[in-house]
Amino acid sequence: MSELSTRSGLPVATIKFYLREGLLHPGSPTAATQAKYDDAHVRRLRLVRALTDVAGLRLDAVRAVLAGLDDPDRTWHQAIGAAHARLPSTTVVPTSALARARACALVERRGWTVHPDGPHTDALARALDALDDLGQSPSEELLDVYASAAEAIADHEVAAVPETDPAAAAEFVVVGTLLLEPVLLSIRRMAQEATSYRTRG
Amino acid sequence: MSELSTRSGLPVATIKFYLREGLLHPGSPTAATQAKYDDAHVRRLRLVRALTDVAGLRLDAVRAVLAGLDDPDRTWHQAIGAAHARLPSTTVVPTSALARARACALVERRGWTVHPDGPHTDALARALDALDDLGQSPSEELLDVYASAAEAIADHEVAAVPETDPAAAAEFVVVGTLLLEPVLLSIRRMAQEATSYRTRG
Repeated sequence: MSELSTRSGLPVATIKFYLREGLLHPGSPTAATQAKYDDAHVRRLRLVRALTDVAGLRLDAVRAVLAGLDDPDRTWHQAIGAAHARLPSTTVVPTSALARARACALVERRGWTVHPDGPHTDALARALDALDDLGQSPSEELLDVYASAAEAIADHEVAAVPETDPAAAAEFVVVGTLLLEPVLLSIRRMAQEATSYRTRG
Repeated sequence: MSELSTRSGLPVATIKFYLREGLLHPGSPTAATQAKYDDAHVRRLRLVRALTDVAGLRLDAVRAVLAGLDDPDRTWHQAIGAAHARLPSTTVVPTSALARARACALVERRGWTVHPDGPHTDALARALDALDDLGQSPSEELLDVYASAAEAIADHEVAAVPETDPAAAAEFVVVGTLLLEPVLLSIRRMAQEATSYRTRG
């Protein structure tokens, strides 16, 4: 345990808390008060830490993400599909029929095959509702600008998912989606700042 | 107060809580137990609600965002600059020199003028550190794909900021950045799903 603490850089108390909360699988017991931990434990601790500190997830959201990773009996496709579908979103509020229709119309325009009741379409509809309430509903044109950008990004991202075992691919998808979100959002804010300076400064 | 509750769709207890927390400015008193609220109150309530429910911000982050909006003595540029610089990020952890250098190199390659010690560059460096820890450091090529996408997006977004009074422009920037983030991230996830189906399904 103290070695795991050194290798992960996390205090023993934090590791014990994660063990109690089921966010870290137990080590193999070697004596009454000792257990053996391996590289998988170090990696999982880093993942939990990144999801809370960098992706900003709450522990219940982290638990849901990890639950999407830990089922061993799956094909590659099932594993990455389940992990991707269980990515957390802030959506808990019901969405309007109009916002759902706009989200579905975007999918149609782009010729995308996505799950119509999937969490991502729902999250989009919810955000559209909130913008509409505030009088800043984005135009179809802006949604298409986002969609074109997202397609270019997804081409690179999906090609990078390794053809390795399902569990490794699922973890890659979770990290690549959740941890690259703050990268994309930071870069968007930097581009906004630079564009504002250039065009309106 | 009860009319404000009806118009905003929020319970009176919630509105009183926001007043106590300083997230909503007081109404003009009309009697010992009565006050007059106007459209600005309804709008502010919708904004607070959207920032918590849809953008997923905590109350202290909402308070910081609103503080960036409420200083009346500013020019248009000062107002949008202050609002944009106070957008919350999850970054609290120090970043490595390597990650900061990569973030600055991206700014250099794109020819962007951005504040080198600004919160967005810091947030990018922090996310790069986390990805590096997990062995999924993005390539310079992927960062450039993101940057190209962000530039295309920012061109549309910055052009849309109204040339109205500074306070209205600052609120537009806050809503347009924070509430469009879940739109962009949802669309990215939908594009990932569609691209995965198309290329590897």
